[in-house]
Amino acid sequence: MKCLLDNWYSNVSRMDNLFDLLTDDQLQQQVSPGRNRGIYLLGHMAAVHSRLLPMVGAGDQLHTYLDEIFLTNPDNVNTEMPAAADLRKYWKEVNGKLATHFSGMTADDWFTKHSAVSAEDFAKEPHRNKLNLLISRTTHMAYHFGQLIFLKSK
Amino acid sequence: MKCLLDNWYSNVSRMDNLFDLLTDDQLQQQVSPGRNRGIYLLGHMAAVHSRLLPMVGAGDQLHTYLDEIFLTNPDNVNTEMPAAADLRKYWKEVNGKLATHFSGMTADDWFTKHSAVSAEDFAKEPHRNKLNLLISRTTHMAYHFGQLIFLKSK
Repeated sequence: MKCLLDNWYSNVSRMDNLFDLLTDDQLQQQVSPGRNRGIYLLGHMAAVHSRLLPMVGAGDQLHTYLDEIFLTNPDNVNTEMPAAADLRKYWKEVNGKLATHFSGMTADDWFTKHSAVSAEDFAKEPHRNKLNLLISRTTHMAYHFGQLIFLKSK
Repeated sequence: MKCLLDNWYSNVSRMDNLFDLLTDDQLQQQVSPGRNRGIYLLGHMAAVHSRLLPMVGAGDQLHTYLDEIFLTNPDNVNTEMPAAADLRKYWKEVNGKLATHFSGMTADDWFTKHSAVSAEDFAKEPHRNKLNLLISRTTHMAYHFGQLIFLKSK
């Protein structure tokens, strides 16, 4: 369990460091021509991690208005974006809440179902537990980190 | 353990599918202006996974000449690259050998030290086990997958 949490935190940490390093202007750039802007990926990461909160039993999702902009819809230069400063704050806030909750979870807790799966489905698909969410969201973070890193030199 | 192996295999599988989809011409493109070419990342992935073989006790590293081109040195258009067909073959071959080995490993095996750490260091740093290698290489794969996906429309 510890190694999975370590991997989560090291991935959060390198993403944190990258967002701290990137200026608001850099966040307005696309990671590659025709691809998502940095600010979209920042909002997307904050939204995805915020949705994790209820799924792992850490309380209500925060800033639910992000879903519409950063999950339901693709990046679009005509969409008015929240301020980068707010998104930066949300990203840290959400990860802080997750960390607090994770630190109180027992090994057994990780194997319980996440809230987006019914008890009936969980009986048939026991891998749909909180640990699997942690693993898949860590991979998701690494995937977008590999793209955001391109903004460093822009 | 199973969920970590599932995550490994699902990441290998989506990388496989992407490499199968990309033409040799697409692999010659940079994933983003001034960044690694697809063929470099294909060779890099094959080399990194080949180095895993001895580290997890699955036998000798294969195609060691890849290290110089894809690990020691950054991508350089002046470097003569191995044929894409060979790199595609190596990538599958190495993952096949790893899969065979992984299928025979017990849960306890995953917590034993990997071969690149001394017994003395392992006593002090017990997290340097095979499981951690699997986790970090899965993250590594997701990181580069997030970049290679940009080649799909090129």
